[in-house]
Amino acid sequence: MGEPPGYRPSAWVHLLHQLPRADFQLRPVPSDFAPQEQEYQQALLLVAALAGLGLGLSLILIAAYLIRVCCCRPLEPPGTKSPPPGGGCVTWSCIAALLVSCAGIGIGFYGNSETSDGVAQLSSALLHANHTLNAIDHLVLETVERLGEAVRTELTTLEEVLTQRTELVAATRGARRQAEAVAQQLRGLAFWQGVPLSPLQVAEDVSYVEEYRWLAYVLLLLLELLVCLFTLLGLAKQSKWLVIVMTVMSLVVLVLSWGSLGLEAATAVGLSDFCTNPDNFILNLTQEETGLDSDILNYYFLCNQAVSNPFQQRLTLSQRALASIHSQLQGLEREAVPQFPSAQKPLLSLEETLNVTEGNFHQLVALLHCRGLHKDYGSALRGLCEDTLEGLLFLLLFSLLSAGALATALCSLPRAWALFPPSDDYDDTDDDDPFNPQESKRFVQWQSSI
Amino acid sequence: MGEPPGYRPSAWVHLLHQLPRADFQLRPVPSDFAPQEQEYQQALLLVAALAGLGLGLSLILIAAYLIRVCCCRPLEPPGTKSPPPGGGCVTWSCIAALLVSCAGIGIGFYGNSETSDGVAQLSSALLHANHTLNAIDHLVLETVERLGEAVRTELTTLEEVLTQRTELVAATRGARRQAEAVAQQLRGLAFWQGVPLSPLQVAEDVSYVEEYRWLAYVLLLLLELLVCLFTLLGLAKQSKWLVIVMTVMSLVVLVLSWGSLGLEAATAVGLSDFCTNPDNFILNLTQEETGLDSDILNYYFLCNQAVSNPFQQRLTLSQRALASIHSQLQGLEREAVPQFPSAQKPLLSLEETLNVTEGNFHQLVALLHCRGLHKDYGSALRGLCEDTLEGLLFLLLFSLLSAGALATALCSLPRAWALFPPSDDYDDTDDDDPFNPQESKRFVQWQSSI
Repeated sequence: MGEPPGYRPSAWVHLLHQLPRADFQLRPVPSDFAPQEQEYQQALLLVAALAGLGLGLSLILIAAYLIRVCCCRPLEPPGTKSPPPGGGCVTWSCIAALLVSCAGIGIGFYGNSETSDGVAQLSSALLHANHTLNAIDHLVLETVERLGEAVRTELTTLEEVLTQRTELVAATRGARRQAEAVAQQLRGLAFWQGVPLSPLQVAEDVSYVEEYRWLAYVLLLLLELLVCLFTLLGLAKQSKWLVIVMTVMSLVVLVLSWGSLGLEAATAVGLSDFCTNPDNFILNLTQEETGLDSDILNYYFLCNQAVSNPFQQRLTLSQRALASIHSQLQGLEREAVPQFPSAQKPLLSLEETLNVTEGNFHQLVALLHCRGLHKDYGSALRGLCEDTLEGLLFLLLFSLLSAGALATALCSLPRAWALFPPSDDYDDTDDDDPFNPQESKRFVQWQSSI
Repeated sequence: MGEPPGYRPSAWVHLLHQLPRADFQLRPVPSDFAPQEQEYQQALLLVAALAGLGLGLSLILIAAYLIRVCCCRPLEPPGTKSPPPGGGCVTWSCIAALLVSCAGIGIGFYGNSETSDGVAQLSSALLHANHTLNAIDHLVLETVERLGEAVRTELTTLEEVLTQRTELVAATRGARRQAEAVAQQLRGLAFWQGVPLSPLQVAEDVSYVEEYRWLAYVLLLLLELLVCLFTLLGLAKQSKWLVIVMTVMSLVVLVLSWGSLGLEAATAVGLSDFCTNPDNFILNLTQEETGLDSDILNYYFLCNQAVSNPFQQRLTLSQRALASIHSQLQGLEREAVPQFPSAQKPLLSLEETLNVTEGNFHQLVALLHCRGLHKDYGSALRGLCEDTLEGLLFLLLFSLLSAGALATALCSLPRAWALFPPSDDYDDTDDDDPFNPQESKRFVQWQSSI
């Protein structure tokens, strides 16, 4: 019959999974997902620490560059006709860096939305699984109650009516025994009853965390966008104080970018390890959390021809008992109704109950089959390991682009700013008038540096 | 038990569905999705035609503006110290328009990817439904063949072995009749056999069309991005020929943007009508294409408590027949094996077949239940009516932004270009040298116009 299209690890998962990992003593650590082991935690922390290293290196480089520029080649006093050579390059590289940063912001918005989509898919799959599990419990409860009610009322009435013919009473008692057996077997099918793990709770927790992650990224992206726009404005208006404030803000955003890069890299590496072989980890975790039999969990998490349905026997026994009740009721209808017309009503009511129970039974067979729950599992994995991982990689690209662009901007901004004319009364002049002679002179001077 | 979380029309669907529609004679047309009706087609064409009207209007406005600028207020010959008033506004508005256009391109990329995601979800749901339908056919075929094989071999052998005791032969014949009845009932369950509609084919067609749509949009977006970048470059470098070429390209992209806007608007309006009440349309269409009973289609497309399982009776009868075969086989084993040891082997083999058939039967019950196929239907609808519609609205926003931005750019570019100095030998001078006196003079003149 072939398995339904399920989850397959993507090329990104394989690629990230093959990167070497090491603990704090730089001893190699296996790439299997084991978040509870100290070495593995150290390996992920080391990945995050690489971003800290990158931040430190870029800060040192920026500082070294600026010190070299300031001390070794002092700038000519601004306002002279000939600006220092390379001044144009400085402003252009600053603008190019800000444009790269803006492109990175676009990528970041896309990655953030993609990550969010993946987590939403995970939540939705968990909600669907929760619905299925609750439906099983509910259906079992309803069917068992209905059967119990039939045994208490109709079958008792029938026994009282047929009390004169012992073989008919025996048949009725047989039907009662079978009905009790069906109820007993069905009760065993509500496997999720009393399990302390609620997929609904997990979905809510995941959505809650994701909401704040999403918001934090949107704020970071907006902050960087504002920094870019105001820096461009400061450059265009030659406003010293704006450029200084934006230089400081760029430094803050640079630190935040490297920080988010570290978090994203560690998460992406951990996620790739998880996604390479999620079944074992999830199986063990669910078994610990729920205490369910491993054959039930294997059935739902693997759902292939090799794993047999652990409810098969209970279902078959219920099915046979239902068929046997049916034939006993038909026998009673044939034998008893001509002699005891008052038996007709409870018999019809019993057949109605039997029909409903058979309908519920078919629904229960469908709900218990691994297909539905396994599809939710596959959908959750695809959300986490495809969309979310892809989104994380886009966010990683955003962080890298913005870290590089902001470092370039931080190198260029102080130099561009040094080229501005030293006008403290700038804000007092009419800066909308391009024909203001002072303004024109300043324009010539700044623009000739481009 | 409650229904599983299904499809609900979104606010956008309601909003678009409430817009008034009219045919070519401007008579109001109901908003129900009826693509086969001429009035409805006309209403959609009219929506698309509105974009043509917009294109015409914006072209007329651009032409009128440029004619007014050229003829009524002739520009002073460039090269004089005082550029015409408003020159700065022209260049800045051109740059602002191009930046808006770039932002629109980002939105367009997002919308294109979102639309593509929605269609991918639709395809994936169709593939999953195809898998389920094929699995049902396959399982029925396999089970019926297995039963037929058992009837031909083991039951015949058993009859031959037990030929001396007529009551046992009668029981064997009873089991044979029941097995044939089960096979007969099961054959009726393969409802998709011989149906001319293949969800796989539909999914492939949809993916094929979507691939080209996606590619066309990516090319349009890249074209617009290139036009923006080269226009900015032309403005920065004051290259006349580049700005002229980019003005022509802007005109082309403006026409393409209005064209895509018309297509998107018509598609979004049609999709909103479809998405407001998709069940009826899909039900009628599927019934026409497949010729299946409406109760089967209702069961799968609606899948709520009000619609009963159309296979319920067949399933119950098969189940009872299977239980009856089981009890007959048990009777035979009790009665016949002590007397005819050679009956043991075919009986064990028959019980094995019966167990497998019961397992297959439970799988079939699960596959036939509306839950799985209805979930695919809901997932396809969500893909089409949430992701795809949202993506289309983003594409619409992109088209609107770029149409507006390009119209502004087309108004400004010829004016900005007229402000450039008339240097045919531009390319011969050293344009990297900001201290070239001629260059400086030109810079002053252009920049003072900003």
